[in-house]
Amino acid sequence: KRTIRLDQARVDKGGHKHFMAKEIAEQPTVIGDAIQHYLSSNGNSVVLPDPGLDFTKIERLTMVACGTAYYACVTAKYWFEQLAGIPVEVDVASEFRYREPPVTKGTVAVFVSQSGETADTLAALRFCEGKAEQIVSVVNVPESSIARESDLVLPIFAGTEIGVASTKAFTCQLTVLLMMALKAASERGVMSKDEIQGKLSALRSMPGILNAALGLQDPLRAVSRKLAEARDILFLGRGVMYPLAMEAALKLKEISYIHAEAYASGELKHGPIALIDEHVPVIVLAPRDRLFDKTVSNMQEVLARSGQVLLITDQEGAVESGEDVWETIVLPEVDPILSPILYAIPAQLLAYYTAVAKGTDVDQPRNLAKSVTVE
Amino acid sequence: KRTIRLDQARVDKGGHKHFMAKEIAEQPTVIGDAIQHYLSSNGNSVVLPDPGLDFTKIERLTMVACGTAYYACVTAKYWFEQLAGIPVEVDVASEFRYREPPVTKGTVAVFVSQSGETADTLAALRFCEGKAEQIVSVVNVPESSIARESDLVLPIFAGTEIGVASTKAFTCQLTVLLMMALKAASERGVMSKDEIQGKLSALRSMPGILNAALGLQDPLRAVSRKLAEARDILFLGRGVMYPLAMEAALKLKEISYIHAEAYASGELKHGPIALIDEHVPVIVLAPRDRLFDKTVSNMQEVLARSGQVLLITDQEGAVESGEDVWETIVLPEVDPILSPILYAIPAQLLAYYTAVAKGTDVDQPRNLAKSVTVE
Repeated sequence: KRTIRLDQARVDKGGHKHFMAKEIAEQPTVIGDAIQHYLSSNGNSVVLPDPGLDFTKIERLTMVACGTAYYACVTAKYWFEQLAGIPVEVDVASEFRYREPPVTKGTVAVFVSQSGETADTLAALRFCEGKAEQIVSVVNVPESSIARESDLVLPIFAGTEIGVASTKAFTCQLTVLLMMALKAASERGVMSKDEIQGKLSALRSMPGILNAALGLQDPLRAVSRKLAEARDILFLGRGVMYPLAMEAALKLKEISYIHAEAYASGELKHGPIALIDEHVPVIVLAPRDRLFDKTVSNMQEVLARSGQVLLITDQEGAVESGEDVWETIVLPEVDPILSPILYAIPAQLLAYYTAVAKGTDVDQPRNLAKSVTVE
Repeated sequence: KRTIRLDQARVDKGGHKHFMAKEIAEQPTVIGDAIQHYLSSNGNSVVLPDPGLDFTKIERLTMVACGTAYYACVTAKYWFEQLAGIPVEVDVASEFRYREPPVTKGTVAVFVSQSGETADTLAALRFCEGKAEQIVSVVNVPESSIARESDLVLPIFAGTEIGVASTKAFTCQLTVLLMMALKAASERGVMSKDEIQGKLSALRSMPGILNAALGLQDPLRAVSRKLAEARDILFLGRGVMYPLAMEAALKLKEISYIHAEAYASGELKHGPIALIDEHVPVIVLAPRDRLFDKTVSNMQEVLARSGQVLLITDQEGAVESGEDVWETIVLPEVDPILSPILYAIPAQLLAYYTAVAKGTDVDQPRNLAKSVTVE
């Protein structure tokens, strides 16, 4: 059993009130580090450490994780399928390990865990030994048990994370998984060299863009004061913003104890819209991408039922659809594949400021441990 | 666009206060009908209508649906994987249709919809045309659009469902999907003839067992009075009880407007346990199966944090672990593969009595339509 103790970690809050605030603020730097570690020296391609992966031979990925890392996997499913044409199955480790699903030929199994010690994820990894073609882990602690038992280890370079609610580890996991998906898209010939270079160039600009997003603290703090009064909150997103909605809801649950839940926007009408009234704020994560109109149409249904909507979007989205909503938060425009990384910032800051407004113990929320090393 | 109108349906409440109560009570009968329709004349095997399915050639199932039908699909994933060794992917239709995931060779696509008119599910079906080996639909309305565009139609024989919150359609979907999984297990030689006959014999006894479960109305009504005071409720389950927990939470949301949410028991420690205090009842769905001890261990964590637990289990489970919980509901013992069908009954009755206690419009809950024929 491996535990990170505050005194061992030899870190301080660097002028921030909480470790979580410090770790949120560190994201441009650590994501920049992660990008640099997986970029070729000319910056035009992705390089994976030995023994690498032959993506031309991979028929399927099975991704397994718990909590926040699970939502990183669900995001990556969209990337691997859309960018590289590789089918991906994602499962929570505690379900995967006891369901013992068939692992078909040509399947590479990917395990994501900040600590690398998550008990259920490690058990799921061991179930896949001898069944999957290769075992890959995406971890923050390269000397962890999960890393040691993997064929290929992809460290996320987030640095020590102290806050129990994961922030920088999540976005670094996303960064590494996105680069892995781009590498797959390139090797499988699904994307051209030029397209890959375009995406990598967009990715390299992310630290600057994330810094701009961190500058939105004031409006986010202001809306959080109102959110702190809510007992229930819904998050909505479509496509790659759906898993981010789930992560945003988890963050709010973890540190503010508000019952937040996420739905794929299109599922709203199949039941959960019955919850909507003026007491349940609805937070819509919707960059102006190809799914924007669909999400906005679901948002209109919420507005028609007196729902209070906080729309997190970009300039174009705000101009088109920001009229009847309670509040709008405007983020920089980015390539749609990068939205989950960018939109994670306001999601984290909303949870943080809401918890601060409620006066909860942000870094050590009740009932939670940093690494879950038991079942 | 096809709409079921009350006057067209020529049905009445048959002495019940609501259509939903009537439809819950009808389940032993309609499930018995569904079973009879798919049993061979000697009762020893499952017969599918023409053109059937060659399960020996199926490499993978992709199942797509919305709302309650989606949870039926997630349940079926466990059955197909564990009983027949067929890997299954499940997706909500609104996500599937826009993600446009790779459909690999040997994939049979299965679409589940009560009305057969669900817009997103129909669009997902059309995306799979020409890509999947075969298109199968599991519907209640055999002349529906989804049925018409399928290669193989499996009607669920639930009869007209009027209540907006689906009950008998859900358990009939489960029954048909389970029989399909048993047929697959038999054809692929994963289960012996004797094993199949054992399972089918257990299935044939379900109407009687469901009738016994329907007799639990009094204790369920009593606990529902307390649940009606809650603003937030969590449902927990493991394995095949996890999708049932999701369906139970949806039912409660739909008609009582209580914010209920389900978690795989093993995920509780990865965040949502922060929500637990004496104001958030936790409903644990746990027959005494091979995962019981794991679920109970998660339940203990809830109890240690002052959580009020309602344990729904069988006699053996109640004796072993019913001590410190707030209330226990005891169901008959059944073969573990049948638990989701049986445990659906108390889940539906809890939602029903809670809604009645709150005085909401049970059959026509606010904001909801019976069939979602628009996006």
